[in-house]
Order: sequence, then structure tokens, then C-alpha cells
Amino acid sequence: MIASCIICNSPYSMDTSPMRYSCECGGLLQLVQDFSGIDADQLKRCFYERRALRHTISASGVWRYKELIAPKLPEDHIVTRNEGNTGLYETESVRQFAGIRRLWLKAQSENPSGSFKDNGMTVAISHGRSLGYRGFACTSTGNTSSSLSMYAATGGLASLILVPDRDVALNKVLQTLAYGAQVRTFTGTYDDGIRWLDNHAETEGLYVCNSINPFRIEGQKSILFELAQDMDWSLPDWIVLPGGALSNASALGKGLHDLYELGFISKLPRVAVIQAEGASPFHRMIANGNVSLTPEQKPSTVASALNIGNPPSWRKARDVLQLTNGVTAAVTDEEIMQAKLHIDRSGIGAEPASAAAVAGLRKLVRDGTIHRDETAACILTGHILKDSDSLRSYRDIPDRIQQVQLAN
Amino acid sequence: MIASCIICNSPYSMDTSPMRYSCECGGLLQLVQDFSGIDADQLKRCFYERRALRHTISASGVWRYKELIAPKLPEDHIVTRNEGNTGLYETESVRQFAGIRRLWLKAQSENPSGSFKDNGMTVAISHGRSLGYRGFACTSTGNTSSSLSMYAATGGLASLILVPDRDVALNKVLQTLAYGAQVRTFTGTYDDGIRWLDNHAETEGLYVCNSINPFRIEGQKSILFELAQDMDWSLPDWIVLPGGALSNASALGKGLHDLYELGFISKLPRVAVIQAEGASPFHRMIANGNVSLTPEQKPSTVASALNIGNPPSWRKARDVLQLTNGVTAAVTDEEIMQAKLHIDRSGIGAEPASAAAVAGLRKLVRDGTIHRDETAACILTGHILKDSDSLRSYRDIPDRIQQVQLAN
Repeated sequence: MIASCIICNSPYSMDTSPMRYSCECGGLLQLVQDFSGIDADQLKRCFYERRALRHTISASGVWRYKELIAPKLPEDHIVTRNEGNTGLYETESVRQFAGIRRLWLKAQSENPSGSFKDNGMTVAISHGRSLGYRGFACTSTGNTSSSLSMYAATGGLASLILVPDRDVALNKVLQTLAYGAQVRTFTGTYDDGIRWLDNHAETEGLYVCNSINPFRIEGQKSILFELAQDMDWSLPDWIVLPGGALSNASALGKGLHDLYELGFISKLPRVAVIQAEGASPFHRMIANGNVSLTPEQKPSTVASALNIGNPPSWRKARDVLQLTNGVTAAVTDEEIMQAKLHIDRSGIGAEPASAAAVAGLRKLVRDGTIHRDETAACILTGHILKDSDSLRSYRDIPDRIQQVQLAN
Repeated sequence: MIASCIICNSPYSMDTSPMRYSCECGGLLQLVQDFSGIDADQLKRCFYERRALRHTISASGVWRYKELIAPKLPEDHIVTRNEGNTGLYETESVRQFAGIRRLWLKAQSENPSGSFKDNGMTVAISHGRSLGYRGFACTSTGNTSSSLSMYAATGGLASLILVPDRDVALNKVLQTLAYGAQVRTFTGTYDDGIRWLDNHAETEGLYVCNSINPFRIEGQKSILFELAQDMDWSLPDWIVLPGGALSNASALGKGLHDLYELGFISKLPRVAVIQAEGASPFHRMIANGNVSLTPEQKPSTVASALNIGNPPSWRKARDVLQLTNGVTAAVTDEEIMQAKLHIDRSGIGAEPASAAAVAGLRKLVRDGTIHRDETAACILTGHILKDSDSLRSYRDIPDRIQQVQLAN
């Protein structure tokens, strides 16, 4: 398997350790796929038949699409947990709230660890294992770390999580600790943690699973593949997703590119990336027409999964906007929590970061960027149980709890 | 649809409101299924083909088996959330801990609301809706209430949850409140709540979704159906499950009966019901050879989902033990948490109640009731995120959190 630098195109082999995450020039790497010899119609039939399987890796909503993700990865190294296979819902109340003709919610929140990270993590962990790594690491306080430690535990592997000490709220890493991870806290930012891993992972024998890992991105393409297959290869006008580290935008864009190139889809949907106002360096870059990203030094939002000031994948995400004639928007914490209320009350439920996508869609419809007669799919990234603190903030809870006497 | 009393066999129509939950004689009702005209081989093929579908109710791991659950329920009343379709895992570390030749874990924890309750709830809510009900109620502090309120919200219906006030820990009902439920707290026990609902639901226009509802039981049969289908209709020697309200034992037993009668399976596995020692009235009844259940007045266990002193479905569960030559066991809170540690560290993860099944299996293997050369499946009932308090109790957490300096 070959990856190339997204800036200077230098190629790197991904088949031997040490694993590389970036080019000598500093650019991130992305996998180069060779789709020659693929018969799209035959593969579509194959993808359909595989949905009925349960005993093989095809039971996974990621590995079902192995030919388009990691065709040469040996099957016996794959660590899988039945990930993907998530629900696609048309919910009338959320559609009305967004103000658009048709709306689908793709609930990656239904993954085994409770977030969309599982789609990419199963591929990264499996690749690292194929290279002989026994220890896996990331910087995260949330969904990435619990996904990483779940897959590491499933594969009998070790996990190490770096957590900035100002963010170490025990309840955010409890799930990660339960799967058996080691946690190191440090004084510094998320970005300091990423830099340290980039510099020291090799000497510690660690395989890094943050979104700088190109296999994470390849795996996350499956979210788009499954959405497209569930919609019989006819995608809506818009795909709307939250933007934190921007791995989702990068991955879905690459997935769109793959499907279009192969002829699985005949039209590219437009992509809208929604950031939280308090952590919106990518939106500001696009809105201001800047050629490079200025990090947000003190990111702050209620949507903890979006609280990233220096998203490593901004170049990939920018390319996706160019490919799809995409847009960005930023929404306030209040708009996020208002959208979350509608998603929760619709029965689907989601963590605040997921709600940012719906809030952004509503904003883009209201300002006319998205026409009300168009159609859209929003990616819900995390489970309602992932951020119980945010559930406490519903102001009407006291009104809905009533003390009564039961006279039998 | 007809249900009959499990004590005196009196029949009741289930096709019109008001909904009935018990007979004049006090016995619970159970659905009477008419399987005449069913061709088992044809239906097996059909169940297989349906696994590939995504757009119809057959995408659900419950409604895929509609012919065996609620064949006459009109499809347009069905409220479904892609429930079931959960993973079946063979995990070496947990197998070694249990001490048995082969072990499968069926992870109902992967359901959309995070517990096995979804399998039955989708059927109960859909039936209530078909009778014209708009309000749905239960007594619960946990998994039942969040499942009920999720489905009610999905169907645009109202939900009312009764909670004994000594148990009203806000974090246990946050998920339920987020889906929009009304909560009434009262001074009394879980059993007082059930009795009040049985007496007052009709005047309040409420459809009751506790396990006394026979449609809950019919839906929960699908856990067994999916397990059997995933294992190519060849079940292990033992099925081991936790026992609280005993709806799981009742439902799986009825499912086994159905599959055996129809010829889907040629041999009945034995069923083991595991209770927590502090809430084990059913185990004590069986162990002491008593003919009726003496309620536990002050049930107490770390496994909150098993903290039930007067399980309504004890007669159904007793019949299942008779049908399958089944057994019971009780395990201590310490044994439960020890098993949970192994399940969590294996990457699967579960709430404490689920771990009781694995703890009980280990105990039954050690005392020779289950032979180490036999095979077993344990049903994991709730997601690791469902009971975050129990995650805090891991004593080694401080040893796994280390403050470091990052020298870049």
C-alpha cells in the first residue's frame, strides 16, 4: 500500500514499520488507491449480497467495502466489531426544524463505542497490527480515545491516551479506562499532544490513531459508502457534517471522489462543514478567503468533540470543498443545543457535536445558501449517552419531574 | 390476536382497547401464536434474504421475524429503529475466565437505546399505537424507561415514567428525559408503581410497557431468533442470562419453544438464569423447591437493572426452566464486578447486570452444573455507557493515570 503527501505528492510505502504520518515537507499523507480492474456493477451486487452475511468480515459496515478501503490488508489482522450498519432515519420533526424538503439522519452514534470514530479506527488498528505494532496511542479526551481503546482491547493490544490536564474530566475518559487504557495527562494543548506523538511514537513503539493517520480516513469513507448504498447510490443534494479535526470532511470527500470516479454515483452532492463558533478556524479561513488556516488559540464550545483550535486535516477538507462546490458555516452553542433538543425529542438523540450539523443546515437554509426544495443528509457523530453533562442543561427538566401520591 | 392467561388459560382479544395485561384470576397473559401453514425451510430462506434489506421493516432484527412475533400487526403502525442486528462475539479472554470450551457473547447492548429492552419495546409501542393509544407508561429507573421514551418519541407519542423517589438519581433518567418523557416520582416501591399502572392506566388513557405487557415478551423472543440464525440454527448447550424482572427468561424460553415446535432447531439448549444475591427471590424459590415466589422486601445489588424484589414474570420463567431442564444461580456484587472487568477489558463492555450472566456461568462451571466441555451463549443486556457510576469503581484507575511532562 502506498500513501502520498497531499502537498508535494512524495510517495511512501505503508507496508513496513515504522509507520509514517506526515511527509518530510510536513504535509499529511493520504492513501493512493488503485481501482483499475474494478467492475462497478459487479461490486455493487457484491456489496448487496454481503449485507446478508454475519460470520465474515463483510458483516462489518466498513469491511464490506474492503476493495475500496484497504484491498491488500490481510484478513487475519483485521480487528472488527460489527461497526457501521447504522440507521438512516427520515424524521419529520427535525426536517421541519431544518426547513428543507427532505432530510435523512445517518446515525453513526449507533456504532459499538458510540461514535463515528469506529468506522476509521477498525482500519487503523488493523493496519497497525499488520505491521506488528502491539501498542496504540492518540491524543483525545473523548470519542477517539474510547474507540481506540475498545478496538485495542478487542484485539488484545495495548492503548495509551494523552490528555491535556486542563481537560481531564474523569467522566470523559471513564469508558476509555474501562477498556483498559493507560492515560497520561500533561500540561499543554491537544496540538502539543499530537506533536509529541508525531515525534516520539516511534521510539515508544506506538502506532498513532489520531486523524493524521491516513487509514483512519480510509475507514471513515465507509460512512459515505453505506449512506450511498442505503440510498441506492443516489445521494441527496447536500451532505452536512460537523467539523472539529476535519477528519470527517476529509474522509467523506475522498469517499465521494472514489464513488464518482468508479461510476457508482453519477452526481456529486455538495458538502457543508459546520463548526462551532467558539472553535471555527476552518470556517473563518474559508469565509475570509485565506489561503492557510490560522489556529484558534483558545477554542471553546459546549460541543466538546468540536473543541479543536488547530485541525490537522484542514488542507484535505479545503480540497473537498473545492471538489464538491462546498460551503462552511459556524453556529453558536445556543443554536447547537436548540438543534440537539429537536434531535433528542425526535427519538434519535445525539451528542452536541452531532447537533451542530442540523443547526448549520437550518442556518444555511435560512440564509438561502441551501434551497428549501433541496435535499440533505446530516451525519450524526456521537450517541446521546456520550455527553451526559449536556443532558443536564435542559431547562425544562424540573417542569417534567412531578412528585405524586399513588393511591392504589 | 389472542392472549391467554398463563394460570387459567382464559382467552382475551388483543385487537381492541382497553389493553389488558392480566386475567381476572390475576395471572399474566401471553400471546397465542398460530403457526399453522408455516413452512420452516421457506421461512429460513426468507429470514436470510431479509438480512440484506435496509428500507423495509425487515431491516430490523425484530421485525425480520414478524411471522413468529406479531403476524397480524399492520405494518403502518410499526415504530422501528433498526433494533437488533447486534454483534455475536467469541472472546478468548472471557471464555477463559468462564472456564468453558466455547462461549459466545450476544451484545444486545448495541441496540439504539443501549439495552435489550429495545427488542420488546418496538413491538409493545407498535401494538399500542395500532390500538389508538397516544400515551405510553412504565415504572422504571433505567433501561425500560429510556427504551420506552425513545420509541414513543420516534413515533411522535407521549411517554410517562413512574419512578420510586428513593431511586430518583437524576443521571439514571437523563436519557429518558432527553427523549421528552414526563416523570412522576412517588413514595413506594417498584411493585407499587406496577400495581398503580395496572389499576389506573386505563382511566389515564395509557398503554403500559412494563414486562407484564405480553407484546414486550413476544418482541424479546427475537434475541433468541437472531442468536439462532447467526449460529445457523444450531444453538449452544447453554443459554445464560441475567434475571431481574425475568422478562428475558420468559421471552427466550418462549422463543425456544417456538423454534423447536416449528422445527427450526432440533435440540433445546438448557437455560441458566442468574440473579444478584441481594435480589434473588427467583433463585431462592427454585433452590428451595418452593411452589411460589416470596418477594425480597429490600432488594440490593450493584447491578441496578437486577434490583427487583418481586419479579412479575416468575411463573413464566419457572415454566422455561421446566421446558429446558434449566437452572438458576445467584452471584455476589463482587463476582459481578469481577466478570464486568473481564468483559470490559475484552473490548466488548457491558453494564453490571450483563456481567452477572458471565459471573453465573463461571460459578456453574466451577460447581460442575455446567461441564467445561460444553458450550454457552451469554446475553449482554446493557451498554457500558449505561452505568457510568460503576465505571468509577475500578480500583486500579489511579494507577493508570499518570502526569507527565511533554518535551517536544
